[in-house]
Amino acid sequence: MSKFGMYAKFTSKPGDREALAAILLEAAAAAETVNECELYIVNLSESEPDVLWVTEVWSNAEAHAASLKDEATRATIQRAMPLIAGVEPIPLVPVGGKGLVFGAKDA
Amino acid sequence: MSKFGMYAKFTSKPGDREALAAILLEAAAAAETVNECELYIVNLSESEPDVLWVTEVWSNAEAHAASLKDEATRATIQRAMPLIAGVEPIPLVPVGGKGLVFGAKDA
Repeated sequence: MSKFGMYAKFTSKPGDREALAAILLEAAAAAETVNECELYIVNLSESEPDVLWVTEVWSNAEAHAASLKDEATRATIQRAMPLIAGVEPIPLVPVGGKGLVFGAKDA
Repeated sequence: MSKFGMYAKFTSKPGDREALAAILLEAAAAAETVNECELYIVNLSESEPDVLWVTEVWSNAEAHAASLKDEATRATIQRAMPLIAGVEPIPLVPVGGKGLVFGAKDA
């Protein structure tokens, strides 16, 4: 089964990027105990002052879908909502590279 | 010093995505020995059949800039050029998360 990847572009309400980043970093910390979450990196856009990008890689799409139903994750999303002007996901299929372990199942 | 991140969107010439992915995976393999390259993941777009995204994280911007001057890297870029219709980089500042080691220097 392929890994599941996503770039999630978050546009904060004006001036709220730092507060939103703090909540997303809490979500990343919570993901430390979730084995199927292989990567969850919070990035600031260099060019857009209200934009954050989250780089996610999961062992499979089902693990990602399950995470969205998790009660703690839903509570975190609820806290973040007032800070968010928009979200644009870019779904990806990670096929290989440095920094993650890829196997025949990812081909 | 902050880490340096980039999403690089490669649009291949029609039908050339697979050949381009193979060359980018060679670049990723070459990066295995470069300590400052922390992440170099090749991803297929789910929605755009000629699009690949490379997720890069480097220990600092200077290491990334130096890599572009490396002779082997330049040779790889030359081989990839005929397959590429366009490249759009999204520069990022990775601030934290799961899957990489962040220190006070990344804040």
